[in-house]
Amino acid sequence: MPSYNVPVRELRFVLNELLAINDATAIPGYGDVSDDLTDAILDGGSKMAEEVWAPLNQVGDAEGCRFENGKVRTPPGFKAAFDAWNEGGWSAISTPQEWGGQGLPGVLGMAVGEMAMSSNLALSIYVGLTGGAASVLMSVAPDHLKQLYVPKMISGQWAGTMNLTEPHAGTDLKLMRTKAVEQDDGTYAISGTKIFISGGDHDMTENIVHLVLAKVEGEGEGLSAVSLFLVPKITVNDDGSLGQANNVVCGGIEHKMGIKGSATAVLHYDGAIGFRLGPKPEPKVVGADDAGGKKKKRGSGAGMAGMFQMMNGARIGVAYQGVALAEVAYQNAAVYTRERTAGRSLTGAKYPDQPADPIVVHPDVRRMLLHMRAFTEGARALLMWLTHEATVGRFDGDDERKQQVGDLFNLLTPVVKAHFTDVGFECANMAMQCFGGHGYVHEHGMEQFVRDARISQLYEGANGVQALDLVGRRMGVDNGRPARALFALISEFIAAQKDDEAMAAYTKPLQAGLNDLMGTTMWLAQNAVQNHEEAGAASVDFLRMMGTVAVGYMWARMARIALDQLAAGTDEAAFYEMKLNTARFYMGRVMPDTASLKRRAEAGAEVLMMPDDEAF
Amino acid sequence: MPSYNVPVRELRFVLNELLAINDATAIPGYGDVSDDLTDAILDGGSKMAEEVWAPLNQVGDAEGCRFENGKVRTPPGFKAAFDAWNEGGWSAISTPQEWGGQGLPGVLGMAVGEMAMSSNLALSIYVGLTGGAASVLMSVAPDHLKQLYVPKMISGQWAGTMNLTEPHAGTDLKLMRTKAVEQDDGTYAISGTKIFISGGDHDMTENIVHLVLAKVEGEGEGLSAVSLFLVPKITVNDDGSLGQANNVVCGGIEHKMGIKGSATAVLHYDGAIGFRLGPKPEPKVVGADDAGGKKKKRGSGAGMAGMFQMMNGARIGVAYQGVALAEVAYQNAAVYTRERTAGRSLTGAKYPDQPADPIVVHPDVRRMLLHMRAFTEGARALLMWLTHEATVGRFDGDDERKQQVGDLFNLLTPVVKAHFTDVGFECANMAMQCFGGHGYVHEHGMEQFVRDARISQLYEGANGVQALDLVGRRMGVDNGRPARALFALISEFIAAQKDDEAMAAYTKPLQAGLNDLMGTTMWLAQNAVQNHEEAGAASVDFLRMMGTVAVGYMWARMARIALDQLAAGTDEAAFYEMKLNTARFYMGRVMPDTASLKRRAEAGAEVLMMPDDEAF
Repeated sequence: MPSYNVPVRELRFVLNELLAINDATAIPGYGDVSDDLTDAILDGGSKMAEEVWAPLNQVGDAEGCRFENGKVRTPPGFKAAFDAWNEGGWSAISTPQEWGGQGLPGVLGMAVGEMAMSSNLALSIYVGLTGGAASVLMSVAPDHLKQLYVPKMISGQWAGTMNLTEPHAGTDLKLMRTKAVEQDDGTYAISGTKIFISGGDHDMTENIVHLVLAKVEGEGEGLSAVSLFLVPKITVNDDGSLGQANNVVCGGIEHKMGIKGSATAVLHYDGAIGFRLGPKPEPKVVGADDAGGKKKKRGSGAGMAGMFQMMNGARIGVAYQGVALAEVAYQNAAVYTRERTAGRSLTGAKYPDQPADPIVVHPDVRRMLLHMRAFTEGARALLMWLTHEATVGRFDGDDERKQQVGDLFNLLTPVVKAHFTDVGFECANMAMQCFGGHGYVHEHGMEQFVRDARISQLYEGANGVQALDLVGRRMGVDNGRPARALFALISEFIAAQKDDEAMAAYTKPLQAGLNDLMGTTMWLAQNAVQNHEEAGAASVDFLRMMGTVAVGYMWARMARIALDQLAAGTDEAAFYEMKLNTARFYMGRVMPDTASLKRRAEAGAEVLMMPDDEAF
Repeated sequence: MPSYNVPVRELRFVLNELLAINDATAIPGYGDVSDDLTDAILDGGSKMAEEVWAPLNQVGDAEGCRFENGKVRTPPGFKAAFDAWNEGGWSAISTPQEWGGQGLPGVLGMAVGEMAMSSNLALSIYVGLTGGAASVLMSVAPDHLKQLYVPKMISGQWAGTMNLTEPHAGTDLKLMRTKAVEQDDGTYAISGTKIFISGGDHDMTENIVHLVLAKVEGEGEGLSAVSLFLVPKITVNDDGSLGQANNVVCGGIEHKMGIKGSATAVLHYDGAIGFRLGPKPEPKVVGADDAGGKKKKRGSGAGMAGMFQMMNGARIGVAYQGVALAEVAYQNAAVYTRERTAGRSLTGAKYPDQPADPIVVHPDVRRMLLHMRAFTEGARALLMWLTHEATVGRFDGDDERKQQVGDLFNLLTPVVKAHFTDVGFECANMAMQCFGGHGYVHEHGMEQFVRDARISQLYEGANGVQALDLVGRRMGVDNGRPARALFALISEFIAAQKDDEAMAAYTKPLQAGLNDLMGTTMWLAQNAVQNHEEAGAASVDFLRMMGTVAVGYMWARMARIALDQLAAGTDEAAFYEMKLNTARFYMGRVMPDTASLKRRAEAGAEVLMMPDDEAF
């Protein structure tokens, strides 16, 4: 059975050393986040993740969810573990106190979220979506609906879902057929079929709150008619007690490659009672996703802004799934390669008193281990930094800073979603590869990490769609202002290091990567505006280039911290030396990817567009 | 359910146009291989693969093999399909006629093998291993054993296996514990436990012929004591009839990520009767694998040469698994992307009378489709070319040519095993990605291709071990003679095209890739001889570079043929134009990988070796 230990030292490094959340002035709007408080959260979350959730991960995979008599049964132990998590308040670390949460900075909730995902991804999805749906309600629901629903979702008494996809409509929401018909009492009758609904039905909570996209009858046929509705599985009386079952039934669950403990449901709505979220539509552009939307106007209702908020949040969450699975997969590979013996070191026996050396002595095995570390540590830093910046930006009075933070967050959301899930999957495979043939059998649990990780590249917008979103929409905001902000930030950091020779090992490769990225950005500006297919053709490689450079920026910043600590005479020299070495690995063996990515991205659309559709 | 159509036109292109096996003078030692004969084989094999094997692929995955009452039961329909294949002679296309085969060139057997792997990988493994084991017996078994066993294996009446791995010993054979004790009658008593035995037990044949590595009592403790034995599941009387059960029992089967229809058995030998293959050992170096072995002397028995022969053959076969799965996965992605609609082309509606365009109009979807084609067509060509060269080389009187062919085959065996299984897995994932969220559900069959493909990177020597074999052993043969032969071959081809401007689009990127490859080869020669860890640190990236360039060489040759056909006025212009376009894709979007691979490979071992083992 695989093991999992929360990387507490790594989390503390990011929280306290990279982001300095323990500095009382770091986060305006939050009180003092002391080291003790952070430690208490990390330790308590670790106990729950390691002792309660992780042991159920293989069980959840082997048993999966079952659909019996029209209901979904979750794997044995899931309900108790779900309840324990919620009772401990672990899902509400960063929820405002007025809604029953602990009101702490988002990065602390994120740290606990990592533990949930690493220990039991399938189970974490129920928790994550419930929190996401509650956040949408906090933002856009009328007050009485907030009061009725949010506290019970935050406490974990009820769960939440998001309903977008239909059998014939995934990415393309305007093909949606689910209808909402206004009733005399102001509610809407919702009818249609939704698929791929994570947590769409299960036996862990007494109620499930569905957020459903539907086209409002009489408001057109296109995207402008799409609005967001709250549709409870069981209707709720005004006093908060449960009423009758709503007209929504689960039609079955998918048989999936992985995350088998997460119920992916088909839901049939047949005149279910729904509550419109936000006012009726006005014909204007709304939602973060639309900030730079040139090609498409979404004249949809304000509730859509909530759905986009949830989707952006979910993308950051899915990005983190890539990191969390890479982390736990890495840990197991590290243990295995230190224990499994075969052959001898290439420079002679390192453990001469054993019949063979452990395989960790081999350079290529170490290459794989360091690759996984370089990714997980760098990607974790980037996600937490982004989240931290967003928290700070929210309370910072400076409009320019607010804009910069918003720009970076919007720009990098599709980048981290796609890049971190791609590399997370690669790392899960690398960890499995460290096991040789043993990696392929269920028993070791490594192939489950691979199967579980694979979905993150597909859901919440397939990664190709993220890349199109990046080049087609987010790069174009105000003539590329967000990308320029990113480039400026990195350039400023590099410039500030120019007198420190020890930093050259990190800033020189980072500058080379940045140059490649800026070069292709220029190429896109020159070629893709006239021919949008050039943007599409370059999109995936360009996104990976941006992700590679952004993580590189984090590594350079982490190297700076490590050098400072070593210069100051730390008693954890080994930790910081390792940090520097992993930074060197990233610069030497990951950053060079930009050279090939640039050539691919600029290879052009012509060859792609040449064949007739039928030639494939 | 996924579909499969044998790519007959592609196979004919390689067989008749690239290799010209229909030229009576092409293969000395073989008679005329007419177009009609080739067509008959391709058509007949297609019928069997498409109509009999492919429909059982999902069944085999869903039902898997079961271990009940000490015996393995294969999935429903497997035995009938196995028998049909053998009765049609499809497993014996290239087997010499004296053993009951059709005596045709190896590439024709390979073409039919591709059909088997694409249509039903799990089932193909039983057939492939049986053929491989029979080939070993033909090479190294004493004559009476050949007569007794080979014909029944060729006919498919009996199956065959190879037994190397033990629980604590995979790559490192010298840790092996299975013992062989010579008996008075000249047979050996074999005792020990073997794991990961594909087809180690099943219900499809009345007997199974195990080829087992064991240490001979009294011949030492290291590799020199290891010899190869034939151990039948049921003993065979001198008249060929079956005798008593031998002392080998199946202890269970693995629960695997994929190829669930292939029984991966644990076998316990307890004094089983075994027959030594080849004479008793002499203290000298033998076996193809040892041709350049400087570091290790394998003073093992001649039977080991047979095992190395089987292993090399199996590596080529596993390489082909990567290609075959990429092919069938590609086909299904192509169909899906032409049917699934979402959004509009970036340059405006291409199918304005439909509510949305099929997703095949998107540049990034086409990029994925072309990537899969560029790999499968190029890799197929390389495997068939290598096999064809080996066939020709065997009959060619010219010693220099024989040596060159042998060098290329030995050099590229680990390259194609690792590179084609890595890229095959990447392609299976790309095909799955084309399905968006639907790719993740069993029903479409795409995730099965991904799970099935994953093992090819692990078995027959994990891919990292292939890379070490390449840099540590095969590159070193006679001071790098095989690598020089490869470089010369490619350089000569490029030089011969220098007056044809139309070829520059292919030869220029090929030359750039070759320069990178030669550069890193030089770097290895300068750095890795003194410090073997530099070789290990560079190995995986170097292997991928060599694989990328070798496939690029094939693409340049295929482009040459396409240009010639178009110049001559073919009536299949669309086919050859597409071939040229796919070649351009390879040169523009795959070949540039060598730039980054070179930088990675030359990044050095120091960063990898810095951490203590415990730091991971």
